[in-house]
Amino acid sequence: MLIEGKNAIREAFKSNTTINKIMVDKNFQGRRDEILALASFNKVKVEYLPRQILDKKSKTAHHQGYIAECVDFVYASVDEILAKAKEKHEDPFIVLLDGIEDPHNFGAIIRSCECAGVHGIIIPKNRACQVNETVIRSSTGAISNMMIAKVTNLKDAISVLKDNGVWIYGAEASGENIFNKTFCGGTAVIIGSEGKGIKPSILTECDSVLALSMKGKVNSLNASVACGIILFEILRGKR
Amino acid sequence: MLIEGKNAIREAFKSNTTINKIMVDKNFQGRRDEILALASFNKVKVEYLPRQILDKKSKTAHHQGYIAECVDFVYASVDEILAKAKEKHEDPFIVLLDGIEDPHNFGAIIRSCECAGVHGIIIPKNRACQVNETVIRSSTGAISNMMIAKVTNLKDAISVLKDNGVWIYGAEASGENIFNKTFCGGTAVIIGSEGKGIKPSILTECDSVLALSMKGKVNSLNASVACGIILFEILRGKR
Repeated sequence: MLIEGKNAIREAFKSNTTINKIMVDKNFQGRRDEILALASFNKVKVEYLPRQILDKKSKTAHHQGYIAECVDFVYASVDEILAKAKEKHEDPFIVLLDGIEDPHNFGAIIRSCECAGVHGIIIPKNRACQVNETVIRSSTGAISNMMIAKVTNLKDAISVLKDNGVWIYGAEASGENIFNKTFCGGTAVIIGSEGKGIKPSILTECDSVLALSMKGKVNSLNASVACGIILFEILRGKR
Repeated sequence: MLIEGKNAIREAFKSNTTINKIMVDKNFQGRRDEILALASFNKVKVEYLPRQILDKKSKTAHHQGYIAECVDFVYASVDEILAKAKEKHEDPFIVLLDGIEDPHNFGAIIRSCECAGVHGIIIPKNRACQVNETVIRSSTGAISNMMIAKVTNLKDAISVLKDNGVWIYGAEASGENIFNKTFCGGTAVIIGSEGKGIKPSILTECDSVLALSMKGKVNSLNASVACGIILFEILRGKR
């Protein structure tokens, strides 16, 4: 698995991701920059390569001259996410993604989750974007501090959460205005896919459905923006 | 200027954008779908072309078999944005972008602005993403209902807004927690660039600086997500 770009690599170092080596633009040889300093401190091998070779290796086209080769992303389990919340003496705060397909959206959602203090993200194994290089790059390092569980069946994950006293909210235009809600206790939010929203079979599992009150004519928010707004509304509602 | 994809073209029709012709995948010939119906109703010429030719013409790679050729995007003026608010008997609600560079972010911001009932967006002429095909496509049609003004100098635009009684808020990590604020009257929000935030010379022009309270370690929100959260917090604060 490759991690590309300065910010993402810096965060990988901070979060103790195992980095095998870092490939660096050979024009940077002799520089004393942050990434090279971190590599030296952590005894990670640095390989200087021509820019064209980095461009070829890059999967995101935004490597900024730095590509780290890391051990593959390790998914967590739903239990581990719940355990993390318990360890921090916090009510579980979890996001479920029902079929997000765009890696940039997935990456931006990971950033928002990290900012909002979400304990973990649950994604389905099939018909959804998995953690890949573009997701890691779009998350600008936030992924290093975020547990992600990949499950065969979102419904089963939801029932585990319910068993643990977590309240399940769906985010759908048909829901109740989130401005009128308060939140307390364990909270999980389900975000639907870009095109189709939450599947009907998943929507029926929700304890409550939330909507943002819209004022325009087109009224279609980007999925990662909608997720960010809802997470911060919940944070506010929990205060 | 090209508009690509079903949603964007449908919204262009709805908002009376002048479409010269629509190029459609020739495999769709004989279909009776929405876009072809709208084209026929509006007497817009339809040209059936092989998929490969559409792929070549496409600037976004997401044309879904439909590309409309339209007259170029027409920017508005700051005065027109203010006049629109007046016409709707609403306090002006405006977003200024201080150097957003990513067209996907710009497009997502236009979507959020449309949903939040923003009257117009002001962008600088230089060192910032302008309205292009990717922006239009990312806005999924919202741009057809949004006025965008392009100005030589953001500072001058800010002083026009101030003269019209609009309160200027900057969005920066150093600001006051937005959760503690209420909003009333004319409101403008400045969103900084992806890498550098708001320029110091612009930040000093703000009447007040707003921040989102973060709970993570990396704490970097995508610019379009941050903009969306702030717009909806203002909407809530205005109720």
